Amino acid sequence: MSLEADMLARLKAVARHPAARGLADDAAVLGWPLGQDLVATHDMLAEGVHFTPDCPPADIGWKLAAVNLSDLAAMGARPVGALMGAGIGNARGTDWAAELLRGLMQCLDAYDTPLLGGDTIRSGPTSVLSLTALGQSAPGTALARSGATDADDLWVSGTIGDAGLGLRIAQGGPGASALLKRYRRPTPRLALGLALSGVASAAMDVSDGLLIDAARLAAASGLAADISAAAIPLSPDARASGVPVAELATLGDDYELIFAAPPAARAKIEAAATQARTPICRIGRLHAGAGLTLDGATPAALGYQHR
Amino acid sequence: MSLEADMLARLKAVARHPAARGLADDAAVLGWPLGQDLVATHDMLAEGVHFTPDCPPADIGWKLAAVNLSDLAAMGARPVGALMGAGIGNARGTDWAAELLRGLMQCLDAYDTPLLGGDTIRSGPTSVLSLTALGQSAPGTALARSGATDADDLWVSGTIGDAGLGLRIAQGGPGASALLKRYRRPTPRLALGLALSGVASAAMDVSDGLLIDAARLAAASGLAADISAAAIPLSPDARASGVPVAELATLGDDYELIFAAPPAARAKIEAAATQARTPICRIGRLHAGAGLTLDGATPAALGYQHR
Repeated sequence: MSLEADMLARLKAVARHPAARGLADDAAVLGWPLGQDLVATHDMLAEGVHFTPDCPPADIGWKLAAVNLSDLAAMGARPVGALMGAGIGNARGTDWAAELLRGLMQCLDAYDTPLLGGDTIRSGPTSVLSLTALGQSAPGTALARSGATDADDLWVSGTIGDAGLGLRIAQGGPGASALLKRYRRPTPRLALGLALSGVASAAMDVSDGLLIDAARLAAASGLAADISAAAIPLSPDARASGVPVAELATLGDDYELIFAAPPAARAKIEAAATQARTPICRIGRLHAGAGLTLDGATPAALGYQHR
Repeated sequence: MSLEADMLARLKAVARHPAARGLADDAAVLGWPLGQDLVATHDMLAEGVHFTPDCPPADIGWKLAAVNLSDLAAMGARPVGALMGAGIGNARGTDWAAELLRGLMQCLDAYDTPLLGGDTIRSGPTSVLSLTALGQSAPGTALARSGATDADDLWVSGTIGDAGLGLRIAQGGPGASALLKRYRRPTPRLALGLALSGVASAAMDVSDGLLIDAARLAAASGLAADISAAAIPLSPDARASGVPVAELATLGDDYELIFAAPPAARAKIEAAATQARTPICRIGRLHAGAGLTLDGATPAALGYQHR
């Protein structure tokens, strides 16, 4: 049996939502909740670029789902389904593809997101994966990067820099295994995003680094940002790494949410985070102007930029 | 400027639908038409597998859109938007990527489908492309492969085998340039699919070969199919090729629609095709049993199968 046929059988076993139609038709058909907006995002992961060839395939599958669900979280949307494009490298066998799917489903199941369809192909020398995540939000309530106003607080969820330190471990460096897990199995902050909808003034997810992404949110809102280094939340492992906070805040792959809200909304923000059982920290503020400062000074580096 | 940044600027220039939010946020947000079902499909194309390295990138872009829109057509859905994953091979420059996008937009514009978002990455040694097409259909009206009943007619749109002959030209063989175009720039039969919704009993698109896909539609409906070789529509170029019709009917990439309907609905089917300005031919019938016959005999080959 070909890899494609083997995968189709495995996909049929897990794509049990009626909208997937048993993967028997040319497309999925989903009754849409009356009056809800559709939120849609599509991100890819490529071998040698976004994951190393020796990365466990179940972790790749998890991350493929998680980075897309993180985009829905940043919009305050509730996931309703996913479609996967599995471009499997020529050297990979059915076991590798099955593990990829297992990790993907672990993440999708953890966030109640049915797999609705997709495509499996042989992609060539390396594996290249794509996913579309579909979500719903009440009309006009989706969050944006551009909604913040002067004097808004800047907040972030979770801890910063763990995934970037995990990447160094994946590349052969030393470090705590919890950091590697943070890199390979990021947590999409869906409950927090939902709870922030209608409360936060602006939001996005942190994928390229806290400082660069905070600068982007500020720029989209036509404002400047100032962040307090001491307020940036760090895990015990990140503190123990000895890497300065100004550097941790430039590392990518956190998939935490950064968001803004007026100071008057602090109690509501705290309540939203409690409801979502997600730790958050207030790390700075937005103000008139442009650019980003850390403790009032321009940082040497912001993070990963597509130059 | 990096290829990713160059592409983002180009994408922002063409993703002008409000739902795309200027590609400034983490996801697209689309007001959904009240009460309409969501139809979603996701297909990939890989260099060296689905297109040759020397294929003009604009043609690749067209085909990426067309094969996904063809899936919507097969469901009788109206397209509402697309998200593209552009995995650009390391050796390709911004010109190649810009041409890919140009061809993609030619096809999306031709079928009134806004580009809502997506992702551009460096994919590794070869290019691997993905697309999600989103469509709408009135509740419960989406077509399926499984709806045909005993004694239904079997119909097909357009002409058969042209694209397969075009593939041989792409691989260096002789032939008419119109055939190459049929391979590289397939026509998604969206108007026909829409017109068949509520009239046809079953439908799918022909991607792996007329015979194999007719056999799949029959099997999904729990029936057998018999096709009349003389009734299979051929273009003048396909006739001139000298390739027997039994072979043409096993070639892939036609992206025509094959569909079923009761004999009592023939006038309605003809009217639907006229309304859609799409030529159709009645090529056979479905009956109790299993399998597929061509002029009453089992063909030597059916088409491309994922073994």
